[in-house]
Amino acid sequence: MRGDRPQTEPAGAASFHRMWRDLLPVGRHPASGGYRRYAWTPADVECRAWFREQAEARGLAYEVDRNGNQWAWLGDPADGDAVVTGSHLDSVPDGGAFDGPLGVVSAFAALDEVRRRGARFGKPFGIVNFGDEEGARFGLACVGSRLAAGRLTPEQAHRLTDADGVTLPRAMEAAGIDPDALGPDPERLSRIGAFVELHVEQGRALDLTGDRVGIAGAIWPHGRWRFDFRGEANHAGTTRLADRRDPMPSYAETVLAARRQAELAGAVATFAKVAVEPNGVNAIPSLVRGWLDSRAPEQDTLDTVVGAILDAARAHADKHGVDLDVVRESFTPVVEFDHALRDELARILGKDAGLKVPVLGTGAGHDAGILSGSVPTAMLFVRNPTGVSHSPDEYAAEDDCVAGVLALADVLEGLARR
Amino acid sequence: MRGDRPQTEPAGAASFHRMWRDLLPVGRHPASGGYRRYAWTPADVECRAWFREQAEARGLAYEVDRNGNQWAWLGDPADGDAVVTGSHLDSVPDGGAFDGPLGVVSAFAALDEVRRRGARFGKPFGIVNFGDEEGARFGLACVGSRLAAGRLTPEQAHRLTDADGVTLPRAMEAAGIDPDALGPDPERLSRIGAFVELHVEQGRALDLTGDRVGIAGAIWPHGRWRFDFRGEANHAGTTRLADRRDPMPSYAETVLAARRQAELAGAVATFAKVAVEPNGVNAIPSLVRGWLDSRAPEQDTLDTVVGAILDAARAHADKHGVDLDVVRESFTPVVEFDHALRDELARILGKDAGLKVPVLGTGAGHDAGILSGSVPTAMLFVRNPTGVSHSPDEYAAEDDCVAGVLALADVLEGLARR
Repeated sequence: MRGDRPQTEPAGAASFHRMWRDLLPVGRHPASGGYRRYAWTPADVECRAWFREQAEARGLAYEVDRNGNQWAWLGDPADGDAVVTGSHLDSVPDGGAFDGPLGVVSAFAALDEVRRRGARFGKPFGIVNFGDEEGARFGLACVGSRLAAGRLTPEQAHRLTDADGVTLPRAMEAAGIDPDALGPDPERLSRIGAFVELHVEQGRALDLTGDRVGIAGAIWPHGRWRFDFRGEANHAGTTRLADRRDPMPSYAETVLAARRQAELAGAVATFAKVAVEPNGVNAIPSLVRGWLDSRAPEQDTLDTVVGAILDAARAHADKHGVDLDVVRESFTPVVEFDHALRDELARILGKDAGLKVPVLGTGAGHDAGILSGSVPTAMLFVRNPTGVSHSPDEYAAEDDCVAGVLALADVLEGLARR
Repeated sequence: MRGDRPQTEPAGAASFHRMWRDLLPVGRHPASGGYRRYAWTPADVECRAWFREQAEARGLAYEVDRNGNQWAWLGDPADGDAVVTGSHLDSVPDGGAFDGPLGVVSAFAALDEVRRRGARFGKPFGIVNFGDEEGARFGLACVGSRLAAGRLTPEQAHRLTDADGVTLPRAMEAAGIDPDALGPDPERLSRIGAFVELHVEQGRALDLTGDRVGIAGAIWPHGRWRFDFRGEANHAGTTRLADRRDPMPSYAETVLAARRQAELAGAVATFAKVAVEPNGVNAIPSLVRGWLDSRAPEQDTLDTVVGAILDAARAHADKHGVDLDVVRESFTPVVEFDHALRDELARILGKDAGLKVPVLGTGAGHDAGILSGSVPTAMLFVRNPTGVSHSPDEYAAEDDCVAGVLALADVLEGLARR
């Protein structure tokens, strides 16, 4: 990637390995092997303490913004045009080790690498850990970056509640964050000249092209819809089929319609979360609640897919005396990353080694996508040989992770020089 | 039902209303309006305390057997040929007020009615509340009667565990029952000459024929099967459909196959309980676990239905790289109630008023079904105008409940005289 790469292990690689080992046990579930680092839980608080230690060990100025996002600064961000990198440390239920933490660990390791090279930042440099990116606990993704970008109001955030009935403000308070301070942070964002998020790829595009590192093109438009199928609870052994208003077959029909429609359109559509009431073996459900996650390369395609799924759900429900309510819980339009910044990353990464750096679309949402409306933003992806993500089996090879650290160091050094 | 029925309210009716009112608030969930009287929980323990009070207020000898079933005796059961009635007080999740408690309350009310008539029992008379009939907490129905009849071993019972990981022995211990004493109780059962369980009907057969009370013919063979569909957790936004091993569509296909096969065969087949791992909106599940409850008038039909559902599940799972394990969690063959006792009930109920008492088959399991292998057993059903059961909307008219109490009093008086 760089012609002048040293033959001995670079500083970024050594510090990457050290940090990775430190963080690996935190919030790991012993049975599943997956991570349960849900926002503002003890596992998340432990990850955040680790972030602070890393910042202070490097002499960076540590601060927590009004929305609970953590920042570590070299130089004074008030000077403006800052170069910032980072990602998140929280996880989905039984998630992998890479989604999020790879970007934060690589940020510190890339700084170590830049310093070892003797390069100096001509601009303020920052590392960030955004709070509650996965939305695993409160059901809404990217809460920290949404609040900062003014794309979630404090009132909306205050209404978020976890499965145990704990509100977001109470959860943040328990983790030492003042929930009354939540709100947009335009001044802070206006000081950022470029934000680059490094992330493990969540598909196999780089594996198919044989590249270690890629650059993000666009994030597909995507959304979540909640389908409430309401019928009538009744005895499963004694109620004649003709007398039933069973919502489960309508849910099942909708799951199959989602798969069919996504296949037809080249999109993805998934029912992965279900809640049933009363959920007793011999009690016909009164309610089956299923969540649809759907994404497509273009808005039109997504509208067509979701519309067809809705039609199939409604037709089956109507025929079987089942009531259907559908609520769109979240929606993010297509995100095109900053073209000038993207081209600059390609130039920086390509100039020394003539490295081919593919540009990839992705179906996954990221804090970088949320920020892209306010700040010039880009993303680097690191190869994922199986494509598996949001799973204990998520994996990236050590060599590829180190290639990501060195690419990020190149990018940061290049951006700080412009 | 009796030509000599008094015009003023009978004693059985008054005491029925009083007891019904007492028991109504116990374990009722304020939001759903349904009952959550799960075995050995505080709500169940409160119902059991009520049973003991009713027994002692009537001067009956109260005892708890080795399996936690409660008994109230008039006369000495050691004399043998006892006439016993009763049912259960626990509930399914968000169940109705009638399924179970109607039989226990009617038992005490029928005793009051028999006494008011000045009739005397020539034989020992008992009222029973069987423990854990619904199986809502530990997943196996009729635990108390199964243990007593030797149809569940203490070792099997000791392995039962609730959703929080609490074992049946620990739960019973917490409710003051010695779990080391669990086991078959043949001597106790051998002293019973006739057991009659009164129950709300869980279908609309009596409503369709216009009768208040019916007699059980047979209980359909029925069983529960657990289907574990295992795939691979992955990111729902970035994993191509072709790369997925998503168990949810295989589950959905199986739900629809169950409905289809049951319709073809005149049986019932229901998926009412589901557990998904990790159950996150944007994580393709690693596991979808669904429970099938199926019942049919004959064994052959049931075998055909369940076999066809299994075939459909396996075909879909195989095609989509999903592993399938199926475990039969419980099975009860067809139960024919004692024909001589059934004929005697019909004779007793018909003789005075020339009352037509229809004989009904049912898809529901009952403690009476479990005991029928050890004891001459019969059941009375009380009309359910909507057929709804296992739901907060379960309902029987007061007049019909009183008709049930008086019919039970007639039956007990008649049986005690033979």
